[in-house]
Amino acid sequence: MPSNPSRRADLADAGLRVLATSGARGLTHRAVDAETGVPTGTASNYFRTRDALLAALGERIFERLTPQPDRLDPLAAEPPTVDLFAAYVRDVAARVLGAPELTLALLELRLEATRRPELADSLGRTLATGFRGDVAFHTGRGLPGGAREVELLHYAVDGLVLDRLTASIHAPPTAADPVEAIVDDLVRRITGRD
Amino acid sequence: MPSNPSRRADLADAGLRVLATSGARGLTHRAVDAETGVPTGTASNYFRTRDALLAALGERIFERLTPQPDRLDPLAAEPPTVDLFAAYVRDVAARVLGAPELTLALLELRLEATRRPELADSLGRTLATGFRGDVAFHTGRGLPGGAREVELLHYAVDGLVLDRLTASIHAPPTAADPVEAIVDDLVRRITGRD
Repeated sequence: MPSNPSRRADLADAGLRVLATSGARGLTHRAVDAETGVPTGTASNYFRTRDALLAALGERIFERLTPQPDRLDPLAAEPPTVDLFAAYVRDVAARVLGAPELTLALLELRLEATRRPELADSLGRTLATGFRGDVAFHTGRGLPGGAREVELLHYAVDGLVLDRLTASIHAPPTAADPVEAIVDDLVRRITGRD
Repeated sequence: MPSNPSRRADLADAGLRVLATSGARGLTHRAVDAETGVPTGTASNYFRTRDALLAALGERIFERLTPQPDRLDPLAAEPPTVDLFAAYVRDVAARVLGAPELTLALLELRLEATRRPELADSLGRTLATGFRGDVAFHTGRGLPGGAREVELLHYAVDGLVLDRLTASIHAPPTAADPVEAIVDDLVRRITGRD
């Protein structure tokens, strides 16, 4: 089992680019090797099976979407109001929309999971870990609401992001309100606070 | 241009099955012919290009998700309360979740639209028409709230459906609350009515 973490991350990142541009069907070990610019066979050494490769891509997406430790420092001293909750959710939306290749790759993986039980398991674990982390952060920070509010906002932001990154219900898409305004509105309504 | 509407619908339905089981990459005119059980070349006669085929599939999804005229009859005499709004949204969720092959095919089309500008145009028009229809129905029926509430619920239901049909944030997925309870909660919070 090769154990060069930086090479492993490079291969996973190349896999995510393949996934975003060619879809799950285009994702092969060989395509990952080509996209990384390494000899054929390299990706197979790191990810023995297609399911291992897909699981690693799921984990890598969450690794890369996790904010740098200092990104949220400006918010650390704020009181835990609905405004602060909205600021955190705006930051999530900005990170996800600012990395469309990761977000689209995650959608491809979620669809591929409907066809591959092993991927459904591994990706489900990754998503559930992320959600538990969101709830723990929310509760620890003393923000308004709890697990249910985080869950409802999770659904709404997923749907909003889907609308903004793929075909939109708004025609023309530029007629849509800014994402920040929609997020503020959602957080206020879902928490029931002004 | 062939003009047998029933044959055209059969071909589109076969295309939707191919899309749900094999992804957008697996969707070819030849695969549609094989799935329909018709001679090679038939699908090409009805849908001249790949973009024409993809656009037709998007329209067919909405055709098939539209409720039969009598399905909503039991609700037609109800007063336009938040309970009625919730009943309509529960019906939308039930139709979408009850036809996973259509819903997953729509997600495949939305992802494919990020790679094909012509599909982004045609599918965006189809989605925008659906959304305008939802808002017109809502307003005409005098339900609580307006276009903004319909928009926010649209995002939330899309995210909820994504969670329920693909890998879920809930582990195990059976630990999630029933969809009906989530929809009721969303409608009450988003409209601000009890």
